[in-house]
Amino acid sequence: MNDMKDTKDMQNITDNADNESLVEGRNAVREAFRAGQTIDRLYVQDGLRDGPVLDLIRRAKKADALVDYVAKERLDRMSETGRHQGVIAHMAAYEYAEVEDILKKAQDKGEQPFVFLLDEIEDPHNLGAIIRTANLCGAHGVIIPKRRSVGLTATVAKASAGAVSYTPVARVNNLAQTIEDLKKKGLWFVCADMDGTIMYDLDLKGPIGVVIGSEGSGVGRLVREKCDMVASIPMKGDIDSLNASVAAGVLAYEIVRQRLRG
Amino acid sequence: MNDMKDTKDMQNITDNADNESLVEGRNAVREAFRAGQTIDRLYVQDGLRDGPVLDLIRRAKKADALVDYVAKERLDRMSETGRHQGVIAHMAAYEYAEVEDILKKAQDKGEQPFVFLLDEIEDPHNLGAIIRTANLCGAHGVIIPKRRSVGLTATVAKASAGAVSYTPVARVNNLAQTIEDLKKKGLWFVCADMDGTIMYDLDLKGPIGVVIGSEGSGVGRLVREKCDMVASIPMKGDIDSLNASVAAGVLAYEIVRQRLRG
Repeated sequence: MNDMKDTKDMQNITDNADNESLVEGRNAVREAFRAGQTIDRLYVQDGLRDGPVLDLIRRAKKADALVDYVAKERLDRMSETGRHQGVIAHMAAYEYAEVEDILKKAQDKGEQPFVFLLDEIEDPHNLGAIIRTANLCGAHGVIIPKRRSVGLTATVAKASAGAVSYTPVARVNNLAQTIEDLKKKGLWFVCADMDGTIMYDLDLKGPIGVVIGSEGSGVGRLVREKCDMVASIPMKGDIDSLNASVAAGVLAYEIVRQRLRG
Repeated sequence: MNDMKDTKDMQNITDNADNESLVEGRNAVREAFRAGQTIDRLYVQDGLRDGPVLDLIRRAKKADALVDYVAKERLDRMSETGRHQGVIAHMAAYEYAEVEDILKKAQDKGEQPFVFLLDEIEDPHNLGAIIRTANLCGAHGVIIPKRRSVGLTATVAKASAGAVSYTPVARVNNLAQTIEDLKKKGLWFVCADMDGTIMYDLDLKGPIGVVIGSEGSGVGRLVREKCDMVASIPMKGDIDSLNASVAAGVLAYEIVRQRLRG
């Protein structure tokens, strides 16, 4: 599923907080799984191991949702109904694509692949803004890790200004492994980080994956080691780093410039 | 005041919502004015014209704060104490600089002036991210209009990652007039907008003001007409425009590139 514009209506994206997309209680969560709804994450109260809960955990694993075991107090705080019965499911606002869908999009357009990889972006406004940038700069898709990254929530969809309907977003278990796999398909990887080569001095014209680190700690060591190039954005200010979505935009548009103007 | 690092402590910037910086009630607001605190905006209940209220309005005008006349219901909704007595003042989290401070900063560094002008940015996260970008790309300051723009709130300061302590932000009554004044001092103005010249084809190396439009409606007509150049960021996607802070970053870094690499 790399094109949601036919199946999702932008009118459905509301201005509510993310917790609009919580489903609470054992029956409601089981029905959501049965109906094939895309569940990101199942929160289960620590220590609960009765039959119905184990059934939901099995369904979550089968559906590739993450299972998080959390204290009852956390579920109580998340709950809007007060009747979670030890389980709350978080629904994705949009469906995810596969990495293959992204490569196919490049192929269909007859273009060199141009992909964003986001290493643990936590702020939904940043993720939305980056998907928006990916759409406008001509990238073919965005890859995020399943763990420690915000998913395609309603807030992300809104911040993307509708770009989630056009630009495929894939989730993977292990970003470093995905980089390895994509290298075999001819992609080069550049990550944005300090103490790299000034981006103007790199050749960024070929099939490329752009790796952007998290807001707090940048690109993880394992992921950085997989990258072919480290690109630095020139900085002459008093503070440390650009906002993650701004850094992604600046580096992506250096790629656009090189592709357009050489 | 273009350097707040000596007088303000970053520790004081909290994670609270903007309304932490509201002062409610006639005595409290009068004391805030007397103490010389920076008040952005005074909200006054429609129709109130008694002596103490007129005194506060006089103080607000003297202190260059905006006065907004609003319905009692709106004050009731804004109020945290429930005892606003028809007046609520919104405090700036940071002090504003003057436009002259920004030019002086360029002069002191022996650099061509490089200034951001923001036409009615409403989202505090965008304003913060743009101040952060201005700091890191080596711009000397940011100019915002007094009306219809978010001010230097605590949320903006936090989103700027501390850049508000280093990069001066000036507020002006009329952005178009400020552009006229700065043109006389040798600055050239470029605004980011559609149907302009692709930014790579413009000469952006001289003393420059970069004009970024609002999230909703872009650069206003009057302001756009004052600009010497309209720069377009190449877009090949399905949606309309980049996030305002991303667009500001992309255009600012084209200026950085031209200054560094010609």
